Amino acid sequence: MRPEALSEAADVDHREWRATALQVREFAARALIAAGADPVAAWPVATAITETSVRGVDSHGIRLLLHYARVVQTGRINPKPRLSFRPTGPGSGIVDADHGFGHHAGYLAIDHAVELAKVTGIAAVSVIHSSHFGSAGCYALKGAEQGLLAMAFCNSDSFVLPHDGLQSFNGTNPIAFAAPVPGSRPLLVDMATSVIPWNRVQDLMNEGLSLPRDVAVDINGDITMAPENSVALLPLGGTDYGYKGAALASMVEVLSAILTGMPYCSRLLAMAGPDFTTHRSLGHFFIAIDPARFVSSELYATAMLAYLQDLREQPSRDGARVMAPGDREWAIAEDRTRWGIPIPSQLKADLDALADSLHILPITYLPS
Amino acid sequence: MRPEALSEAADVDHREWRATALQVREFAARALIAAGADPVAAWPVATAITETSVRGVDSHGIRLLLHYARVVQTGRINPKPRLSFRPTGPGSGIVDADHGFGHHAGYLAIDHAVELAKVTGIAAVSVIHSSHFGSAGCYALKGAEQGLLAMAFCNSDSFVLPHDGLQSFNGTNPIAFAAPVPGSRPLLVDMATSVIPWNRVQDLMNEGLSLPRDVAVDINGDITMAPENSVALLPLGGTDYGYKGAALASMVEVLSAILTGMPYCSRLLAMAGPDFTTHRSLGHFFIAIDPARFVSSELYATAMLAYLQDLREQPSRDGARVMAPGDREWAIAEDRTRWGIPIPSQLKADLDALADSLHILPITYLPS
Repeated sequence: MRPEALSEAADVDHREWRATALQVREFAARALIAAGADPVAAWPVATAITETSVRGVDSHGIRLLLHYARVVQTGRINPKPRLSFRPTGPGSGIVDADHGFGHHAGYLAIDHAVELAKVTGIAAVSVIHSSHFGSAGCYALKGAEQGLLAMAFCNSDSFVLPHDGLQSFNGTNPIAFAAPVPGSRPLLVDMATSVIPWNRVQDLMNEGLSLPRDVAVDINGDITMAPENSVALLPLGGTDYGYKGAALASMVEVLSAILTGMPYCSRLLAMAGPDFTTHRSLGHFFIAIDPARFVSSELYATAMLAYLQDLREQPSRDGARVMAPGDREWAIAEDRTRWGIPIPSQLKADLDALADSLHILPITYLPS
Repeated sequence: MRPEALSEAADVDHREWRATALQVREFAARALIAAGADPVAAWPVATAITETSVRGVDSHGIRLLLHYARVVQTGRINPKPRLSFRPTGPGSGIVDADHGFGHHAGYLAIDHAVELAKVTGIAAVSVIHSSHFGSAGCYALKGAEQGLLAMAFCNSDSFVLPHDGLQSFNGTNPIAFAAPVPGSRPLLVDMATSVIPWNRVQDLMNEGLSLPRDVAVDINGDITMAPENSVALLPLGGTDYGYKGAALASMVEVLSAILTGMPYCSRLLAMAGPDFTTHRSLGHFFIAIDPARFVSSELYATAMLAYLQDLREQPSRDGARVMAPGDREWAIAEDRTRWGIPIPSQLKADLDALADSLHILPITYLPS
């Protein structure tokens, strides 16, 4: 959300606020603990949302702290979960999140998958009885940072039309994939299987702008460019090729819900309420792959670096450059690591109010 | 290719020809053997292209027999490969295709992945020194038919623009996923990560029709609707959201080429030549997942059937119905199993000529 979009809100000042990642993470952890979360659960949530903000994925970053602090207070989230891991084979296992934060369970699951994959070559760990885990990329990255290729999948409540459909059915069902890049940050794919995220519709509405064509539909299932009339998103590929995005969404649904025994898309309680007290029982699915079982580390390094260099050197449209998956995120991360995470004025006001209500110190912002 | 598009070709009659799958498969196997392929290698190729035709994916079906018979004669394909499988961990291994047909190696690899996954819960098998393997769905289906969830990935030579690029770089890099459906054919995702396949461009050119907008570019990297001016495809998502399709293509490239040590997209010899004698050294990557390690078979069955029923019952646009991934393919398969595989007149003429040149009996077509 751009600060200038808030010019109608008289009680918000319009400076650009920035805070260091350490400040943001500390504040998020303290807020969650003050809201009732076990410190052991609060820390991974704070880490995930901060790192997501650092990468520039603001839809799933610090702004979600307001939501997470709320749902741990209302009882949707078990504040003191007893997470368990049950191996079910040499390369497989199940984490029971005990209705705690999905981030807590997600990091545990990918770490178990990494540990198993180092023995077996590839491993998969599912998560049951979980909740929103933020950005899927966090967990794929956790695998890649340990030298493995990793995938993360999660379903969500209905936001996306089936291909040729009129009403939302599948969730935005993200796919994340990360692969180590020697001497550099991982290659990172982290994408919803809808054309755009729902959050983008809300941003454009707040900014008084139109939607691009062929991304959302109104209550009748007709394409609309008016954010305020939008009720569902199109799958990746839009009206003509949305069967591809819808197929990927179904793949994610099978891995995250059918294979975990958790409720699928249309049976999930909505993240946005009105019920904030019942556990949602989301499922996640993680895969870790040990590259050393398939190729020497020398050859992997040479090929990966050559591929990325070739890709980045491709001729580009005027005013653009060809980027590898994750390049945009890492460029933003470099900027935000140096200059801090920008916090829009309205979000700053909301976070200050949260601090007030929880009787904790607010974020100390960087001097502007 | 619709028969009426060939009305300019004076030497082709315009009846619709149909042949049973058994006839097509027998003919394909006999043709490949006559072209020099080892019978053990010819059979999986014949099986894959026939089953792909049965499912209606004509771009990767029997029409490719002409190509495969050619490349085994020109030496690109090793006619008598010695395939080997080397386990590299309890859940991982590598098939060396010895420059034989990719279909042969692909079926071997997914079968090994299934065998390993039954022990470990999940397994991955890569293929090195391979060649075009037809439709990725064949191998995912082979896993699902054995009760496992399966994924298949393969890269291909440059056909697709990078996002914001001007020239083709990645291949059409397919993703396939199949999951068992109790009492029914598997759920099947089998898609290129480009907006449309290259073959579709050629079909529209043959039919004298325009391209849809935002699917292909000309030599300058500008969007074109003229098939004859098209030189590259856009990634899934098109001009605005192609970073998603491009990201998926990179994921496939990493799994199929970087992780196998095989040449990536822009370094691959083109499938269409002009070099038909050098081995192409494609890589593939397969994953098999045992659902029993994650959920009881009863719960899996109940959830899968409920999800598919809910999806198929979603309200749809006029004249359409909401389908689950694979529904279209299985409906065509039912029709073609009953009525035969339609063979366009030009393809029939080409297959008859192939039979002639190889001194084998042509396909016996069904009475029209």
